[in-house]
Amino acid sequence: MQNFGCEVLRVVNPYQVAFREAVSAVSAAPLLKAAREFETVGAAVADCSLVVGTTSIGHRELQHPLYLLATGAKRIRSGMAAGPVALLFGSEKFGLSNEDLSHCHWLMRIPTVDQRRSMNLGQAVAVCLYEIARSKAKSVQAKKIKPAAADEIERITQMLLEASRRSGYMNPVVAASTESKVRRMVRRLHITGGDAAMWLGMLRQILWKLQNSE
Amino acid sequence: MQNFGCEVLRVVNPYQVAFREAVSAVSAAPLLKAAREFETVGAAVADCSLVVGTTSIGHRELQHPLYLLATGAKRIRSGMAAGPVALLFGSEKFGLSNEDLSHCHWLMRIPTVDQRRSMNLGQAVAVCLYEIARSKAKSVQAKKIKPAAADEIERITQMLLEASRRSGYMNPVVAASTESKVRRMVRRLHITGGDAAMWLGMLRQILWKLQNSE
Repeated sequence: MQNFGCEVLRVVNPYQVAFREAVSAVSAAPLLKAAREFETVGAAVADCSLVVGTTSIGHRELQHPLYLLATGAKRIRSGMAAGPVALLFGSEKFGLSNEDLSHCHWLMRIPTVDQRRSMNLGQAVAVCLYEIARSKAKSVQAKKIKPAAADEIERITQMLLEASRRSGYMNPVVAASTESKVRRMVRRLHITGGDAAMWLGMLRQILWKLQNSE
Repeated sequence: MQNFGCEVLRVVNPYQVAFREAVSAVSAAPLLKAAREFETVGAAVADCSLVVGTTSIGHRELQHPLYLLATGAKRIRSGMAAGPVALLFGSEKFGLSNEDLSHCHWLMRIPTVDQRRSMNLGQAVAVCLYEIARSKAKSVQAKKIKPAAADEIERITQMLLEASRRSGYMNPVVAASTESKVRRMVRRLHITGGDAAMWLGMLRQILWKLQNSE
């Protein structure tokens, strides 16, 4: 991370023994020491305006747009001009869960010879950050549109889910799968920072009305 | 190495304890097992028509042409058309010696933030091989996303406006201006054809609930 100018490490529910005993590379100790722990992916990416998941695919049906690293890195660089970007890595064994993925705007894959084979985590991170540093920042955006932060998007998601529950749209039997579907759907909208307030106001009022009518 | 289609590992005077006890990544055991040992760099690269050294420079006077990885990788790919190419890595601590370097045609450096800082060996190898494989990688088209038709978007808009009216979100005095604000906002979302049905279903149910509660 430090080789490529990336200084903020956040970990979600780390295996404590491994995390506490982790030995950093030469002179990267401060970065590791400053790593913050979170209980959920949602909390870890709360202040980010773009959340990108990484995958080796082949093992599940993807519900997200998927880009190869070179293309994805260019998009990340554009995103960095607008706000903090989170790059999400799963465990080497299992990758990211569907719940993890539902927090992502889109996914990225390192082009490898054998798609079914996963990569060493440290090497995957190094390759991704190298490619992101490699792409020169392009100031092509004519108008700078500030995207909504992840916590605003999540609040919109939660209110929409609540409205779905209260209105009877959500079938309790398939609630979990509907929840991830809605979460992904909201993220596909790329709601802007300016629009987030309007969405929240509208949904709050609808929820209030649904509540008071029960 | 295996992730990027590189199958031949040669080691020069390895520290036997570490080398024999090395644990390979998932399914890379055959590659490690087939690694050949040599006593000198000269013997290890004997059959290669191009030998490229890697360096983090800054620590010694270089006598070789030095290229950044992106440029070097292109030259390596051209070289591969002519014969076997060796990519030479030194130890993490000391890098390549002057004697090692004397076997190289030219040198290559991974562009990092801090030139004096060396990289983890495995990560450096992964980044180099990624870049060499990169030019060959076919770009995968992101899944073609069909946008929703204008009439679907307008139906979503109308239902959202209706929900706003019924819930009391919309102030009748400024209804007209709010209406066009909502219309623009919905269009900024670029809802896909696949998502439109879900939005319509959800909004229909919310509206039904709001209606039946009056």
